[in-house]
Amino acid sequence: MKLITVGSVAFDAIETPFGKTDKIVGGAGTFISLASSFFVENQGLVSVVGEDFPEETLNYLTKKGINIDGIQIKKGEKTFFWSGRYHNDMNSRDTLITELNVLGSFDPVIPSAYQGADYLMLGNLSPEVQRQVIERLDQRPKLIAMDTMNFWMDIALDELKKTMALIDVLIINDEEARQLSKEYSLVKAAMVIREMGPEILIIKKGEHGALLFHGEDIFFAPALPLEEVFDPTGAGDTFAGGFMGYIAATGDTSFENMKRAIIAGSALASFCVEKFGTERLTEITKQDFDERVSRFVSLANFEMNQLA
Amino acid sequence: MKLITVGSVAFDAIETPFGKTDKIVGGAGTFISLASSFFVENQGLVSVVGEDFPEETLNYLTKKGINIDGIQIKKGEKTFFWSGRYHNDMNSRDTLITELNVLGSFDPVIPSAYQGADYLMLGNLSPEVQRQVIERLDQRPKLIAMDTMNFWMDIALDELKKTMALIDVLIINDEEARQLSKEYSLVKAAMVIREMGPEILIIKKGEHGALLFHGEDIFFAPALPLEEVFDPTGAGDTFAGGFMGYIAATGDTSFENMKRAIIAGSALASFCVEKFGTERLTEITKQDFDERVSRFVSLANFEMNQLA
Repeated sequence: MKLITVGSVAFDAIETPFGKTDKIVGGAGTFISLASSFFVENQGLVSVVGEDFPEETLNYLTKKGINIDGIQIKKGEKTFFWSGRYHNDMNSRDTLITELNVLGSFDPVIPSAYQGADYLMLGNLSPEVQRQVIERLDQRPKLIAMDTMNFWMDIALDELKKTMALIDVLIINDEEARQLSKEYSLVKAAMVIREMGPEILIIKKGEHGALLFHGEDIFFAPALPLEEVFDPTGAGDTFAGGFMGYIAATGDTSFENMKRAIIAGSALASFCVEKFGTERLTEITKQDFDERVSRFVSLANFEMNQLA
Repeated sequence: MKLITVGSVAFDAIETPFGKTDKIVGGAGTFISLASSFFVENQGLVSVVGEDFPEETLNYLTKKGINIDGIQIKKGEKTFFWSGRYHNDMNSRDTLITELNVLGSFDPVIPSAYQGADYLMLGNLSPEVQRQVIERLDQRPKLIAMDTMNFWMDIALDELKKTMALIDVLIINDEEARQLSKEYSLVKAAMVIREMGPEILIIKKGEHGALLFHGEDIFFAPALPLEEVFDPTGAGDTFAGGFMGYIAATGDTSFENMKRAIIAGSALASFCVEKFGTERLTEITKQDFDERVSRFVSLANFEMNQLA
């Protein structure tokens, strides 16, 4: 198996200035593995859902090459549910409802078929659960990437630091990087955070793109300038999934290839925000993806001439 | 003459978290023409100073190939003076003192040697004065670029729109673009603003880089991630001067060359913020510049492979 993803498989109810949804399928694990399935055919998802979770979604994941033996289905229990409302700027949101349900007692199980996987993506979850997954693997993956959020910095900083010491790539946003490092400059923040464990750091800046810190090098990845963001839910997870799927598919963790992986993740994320939830991710073709990537090339690449 | 710049030549007194200055030389016209002098040998500056302005600075400008016949020296009057204090985030500042002095009655004079110039850069000034300069040229330059600020949108919007109708390139920051267009999305803001006159729009986003809107194309220019910004004063003018100097030196207004011009401007601006005022700009060598540009190349460029 190439890649294991750990993350929530959930229900979301979303309100944006453009409309609102009933309960739809969401969750970090769902977005990450759908995005990485664009590049990786042989991957597994570790998660937990309740009896109320639709079988057709699980079947759809399987059809996308995602092994779901690692998704526990809890009889008589309910799936994690999150509801939120985005503000007009689409950069900030209020959480209206969080029902942990099955996620409150999540005890991750690694199917034997997953053992020996080369790459591990830890979606945003309690840092203790993220660490349990690492500990339950017989063999350390070649590369472990991890997402987290300010919530865990607030309530479980020590646990978070213990998990961070075990990983290779941390993916967080600029606000979280500043909170975690207590530094305003992202260059300084990166130094502090990389001292905590992850050799490689990706700082997401929303509409301002993302920064990759890799060895002595920095890559400033563009975001596609969009007329409208319809629904930002899952964009960060899609970015992480596209990134990690690209790395797993190419098996190359060099700076130049991580640049490409970030562009791949950014391209998928730029689709994700065009419709509610995972809808757009299920539609895009290889041609759509290639066209979107060529927009990123035109957007960011330049060739300097020598001035006479 | 290749390039005419119009803009203030002034005194600044600056406070940052790193220190403070006495009155030092500043002003949009000074920063722009010093930056463009990196690329253009034959340019002129249109401005006004008081009797108190140091002759050695005027001599220094001349030494840099900047014709100063267009700088009026007003006997018995004082040079424009601005004093400001930057906040800890270095992104916002308070103006402590503004003494317009000679700038209050600035009536720009175009020396005959300036007539026939190919390129015109209108630094931030009253839109009426900016328009007077255009009107006083015998022949319309090939390309007119203009900087402005929210202050003029607040108090002289109609005048500003009249001047905008006459120019080719507008250079403003993201907040100003949103104010001018009444649109939050910068893509939508760009559409509205380009309807007002300028075919080409550059939106500066500080530490988040800059966007170039040119024809149907968009370029997302990176900003160099910096550990510290020592003094941001003049960075925007240095960017504009580097941009316009590069365009004037190459005579090429294509999308691909404007990308290069933006990188050139960004590289010079990244030096500008390393010391107070114009100090750093007077030190950099061709080699410093080339090294800085190569950092931008590594920072922004990537090459996509075809995935199997």
